[in-house]
Amino acid sequence: MSPLNETAKLSRRAEVRRAQILDAAAICFVEQGFHGAGMARIAEQAGMSAGHIYHYFENKDAIIEALVDRESELHSEKMLGFHAIPRDQLLQELVERADEGVRTQTDPFQSALNLEIIAEAQRNPLIAEKLRANDTETRLAFQKLLGETLGLSDVEGRVELMFTLFGGLPIRILRNPDLDREALLRYLRKVIRAVLAD
Amino acid sequence: MSPLNETAKLSRRAEVRRAQILDAAAICFVEQGFHGAGMARIAEQAGMSAGHIYHYFENKDAIIEALVDRESELHSEKMLGFHAIPRDQLLQELVERADEGVRTQTDPFQSALNLEIIAEAQRNPLIAEKLRANDTETRLAFQKLLGETLGLSDVEGRVELMFTLFGGLPIRILRNPDLDREALLRYLRKVIRAVLAD
Repeated sequence: MSPLNETAKLSRRAEVRRAQILDAAAICFVEQGFHGAGMARIAEQAGMSAGHIYHYFENKDAIIEALVDRESELHSEKMLGFHAIPRDQLLQELVERADEGVRTQTDPFQSALNLEIIAEAQRNPLIAEKLRANDTETRLAFQKLLGETLGLSDVEGRVELMFTLFGGLPIRILRNPDLDREALLRYLRKVIRAVLAD
Repeated sequence: MSPLNETAKLSRRAEVRRAQILDAAAICFVEQGFHGAGMARIAEQAGMSAGHIYHYFENKDAIIEALVDRESELHSEKMLGFHAIPRDQLLQELVERADEGVRTQTDPFQSALNLEIIAEAQRNPLIAEKLRANDTETRLAFQKLLGETLGLSDVEGRVELMFTLFGGLPIRILRNPDLDREALLRYLRKVIRAVLAD
């Protein structure tokens, strides 16, 4: 095996380890809150030694920052996916994929994690800054999609409305755990059509 | 002065004191977080002795519960106000008053306080239970308004959509502090019309 392959293998292994730690940390943050969860508990959940964890992340702040980045990468991938849809199918696809957004945003674990991150952003300017930078990136990409692919004007307001709605789902499911997702979805689809109409 | 008047005066004074403490506690929770804010700091902010505060509230949990109740009373009053609007004007009034909802829900102080309460509800089952009970009450009142006054069917989904949207604004303003409220409002009004159309 060439030295290059060796390096690639090491870096793939490091990526897998990092992902394991992030998954474990997410579980701890949801169960005990960001401040309640210690590095020792995260290590235990990840099945590693605490020393091993510090090899990948300097502290808990670095872990929560990486979790925010990971969410941001998922959003970027989703945006790229939207950009690949032909113009004449895009509106219909956005309406149809609404259920996917509702499922993710009201998933008990994912929505609890999102609210933990939001709560931490209230106190921690670094996390707030990262959330805002990610939001700007996703917002501009979605504005571009609506403007260039769908040929819409006034894209700022349309995007803010959509982001408020999907971003509000974690609070909605906390306030009403018996939320009727199908009933909501009927009107969500109607709203997407109204907001993305010319 | 009759004994009855004396009692009424005392109870009015107690109400004023309670409100002072709640206002002071809200400031402390926003500045330092629910866990960072101590009863001594709340007392200082309210300009009272800590002992005086314990006369009105057993502990911080009781204060945050009272803050949730106070928000719930505001919602109830708003619902009563809506019920007083004649049927033929209600839809137009709801569309026009959207700016009031955006202003309140994106107010920096109010939205930060809402997110503090949401964060606490994630960890504290009593607060979560209270938020949920209040949500149910407001939700049923709004469903009744749409069903009886506007004669709409399928009111559950319509109300969930509206509550997700307005409830999502505190997160939206955290993620994008430069939110263009006017641009959002144009589409919010369009959405209210679409969701409340027969």
